[in-house]
Amino acid sequence: MSVNLKKLAEELHLSTATVSRALRDSYQISLKTKEKVWAKAKELNYQPNPSASNLRSQKSKTIAVIIPEIANNFFSLAIKGIEEVARQQDYHVLIYQTHENSDIEAAFIQRLLSGRVDGILISIASEASSNQYFKEIIKDIPLIFFDRVFEDIDAVKIITDDYESAYKATQHLIDCKCNRIAYLFALNNLSTGKRRLEGYLAALNDNGISYNENLIAVDTNNEEENLELIKNLLINHKPDGAISSIEDMALPFYYACNELHLDIPKDVKIISFSNLKTAPLLNPSLTTITQPAFEIGKEAANVMFKILLKKYFEPNETIILKSTLIERASTAC
Amino acid sequence: MSVNLKKLAEELHLSTATVSRALRDSYQISLKTKEKVWAKAKELNYQPNPSASNLRSQKSKTIAVIIPEIANNFFSLAIKGIEEVARQQDYHVLIYQTHENSDIEAAFIQRLLSGRVDGILISIASEASSNQYFKEIIKDIPLIFFDRVFEDIDAVKIITDDYESAYKATQHLIDCKCNRIAYLFALNNLSTGKRRLEGYLAALNDNGISYNENLIAVDTNNEEENLELIKNLLINHKPDGAISSIEDMALPFYYACNELHLDIPKDVKIISFSNLKTAPLLNPSLTTITQPAFEIGKEAANVMFKILLKKYFEPNETIILKSTLIERASTAC
Repeated sequence: MSVNLKKLAEELHLSTATVSRALRDSYQISLKTKEKVWAKAKELNYQPNPSASNLRSQKSKTIAVIIPEIANNFFSLAIKGIEEVARQQDYHVLIYQTHENSDIEAAFIQRLLSGRVDGILISIASEASSNQYFKEIIKDIPLIFFDRVFEDIDAVKIITDDYESAYKATQHLIDCKCNRIAYLFALNNLSTGKRRLEGYLAALNDNGISYNENLIAVDTNNEEENLELIKNLLINHKPDGAISSIEDMALPFYYACNELHLDIPKDVKIISFSNLKTAPLLNPSLTTITQPAFEIGKEAANVMFKILLKKYFEPNETIILKSTLIERASTAC
Repeated sequence: MSVNLKKLAEELHLSTATVSRALRDSYQISLKTKEKVWAKAKELNYQPNPSASNLRSQKSKTIAVIIPEIANNFFSLAIKGIEEVARQQDYHVLIYQTHENSDIEAAFIQRLLSGRVDGILISIASEASSNQYFKEIIKDIPLIFFDRVFEDIDAVKIITDDYESAYKATQHLIDCKCNRIAYLFALNNLSTGKRRLEGYLAALNDNGISYNENLIAVDTNNEEENLELIKNLLINHKPDGAISSIEDMALPFYYACNELHLDIPKDVKIISFSNLKTAPLLNPSLTTITQPAFEIGKEAANVMFKILLKKYFEPNETIILKSTLIERASTAC
């Protein structure tokens, strides 16, 4: 007579979730526990649901990368880094874009859980969402966060030094005699965005410059509205410098300056978080805080394969890589 | 007593492939044939292999887009167009990049055939490859080509007017008094690339300008080598205008001119096939032949869903959308 999962768990004094994970050889269960479960399963002649078990044991040899937008050099470089590692392991990399929509993000992850991929690398959507969903998901599939993460989730996270980079960018403008420094604030629901804002505020404070809320323009997620917002900021509050937390706000800043006949860098300087390929060719060339996008992707994929090959298990580790400030004409003193 | 597929096919005087496709309700088989097959299958009590049949009949509600590179605004816009249509149908869109490698392309398609996606939209890798593989594949899964296609395959293809666009670009430079017009030749294994070159040659010919092979620089698929190639072209053959068949050769052209202290457009003009978002912000702003990328994606996805919803079957149709020449400072007369 065979037993079901519940009975098997009772016999082992373990939860059904633990037994289920042990049976499918999850990296989250210790080898000791797994061996205990496997021995008991054999002893009691436990027969798993055959089709479900087949799906589970059949490796897809595929990992998914879930990102907000592919039309962004940061993400395309990160994916290149991921692919470089994946190809060494003979894995395919599927890409999926959420367009910052967390419902679409969750719906897609749900679809991936049916054995279609072996692991997920994700940079989360900027739309406010609960981390509760991810807390459940990471029990079912290896999942690593990169760049845009939930800070309070136990998982592997690969991020950059957002606070320090924004601080350095602000200091760079202050060193160039700017004292009315605007901040183009995006990713405001994410720790990435919050850390960048904090770095800006701390640098102002350390230099005795008081914070002026009129100099903060918050991303509307709409290109035309952002252009209007920045034009109004330039007309009404006359900043002499600006830090853009994403390149999608730096480009409208250029257009706004063109329209208002403001000279960059003479009238107003700008520095942006960006991996834009054409930054050196813009008029004027754009000073950037450039994240090590390719390396972030490589690092994230390396950890993923350690998990998949069961060589590694560190449920809560944050790896921080450093960004680089590249001075160009848009902040020339 | 039940029969197998071979026996069923014999009874129907059809090939096993046709019977198999009819049984899984393929769009490639006429309704008349399908009804004949279904009736005979019922009569002979044909029992399909249950697991295979399950895999087949279970819609994945997912389509795959296979492209050379995501770091290219043309493809990211095309994918946006595809996604817009797919989301209306409650489908997910998976993205996969081949980096111009046709072995990777074929290996990935092979993996997709196991029921993971319902259809494939593809822009083929530029590496020379045989169309034989695709001739087989399109019998097994709905597959639509966009932008980069095999001209001699019977399939739905969505392309742009490459010949006419290149002709118009060349005429534009000739109208600006250029008569030593370089051609930065890429995609040379693809019909897309060939049509563009033909348009350039025809415009030269129609204007009585003789073709000079020294003015043709062929893409090396390597950024640094392309930069050297273009520098040599500029130094040794002194073109007064250039047409770039891809934006990845226009950017090194800018760098080369900077290094050689050549003024665009005074010393040499340039126009490029490109959907580069920052084209208007470059120094100088870049004249482009801009493909209707978003519309190409929408059109390709629309045809795909007609096929998937069995509202449509046109095995060999080429839909041609028009590109736009946008004049900017890089070709100012």
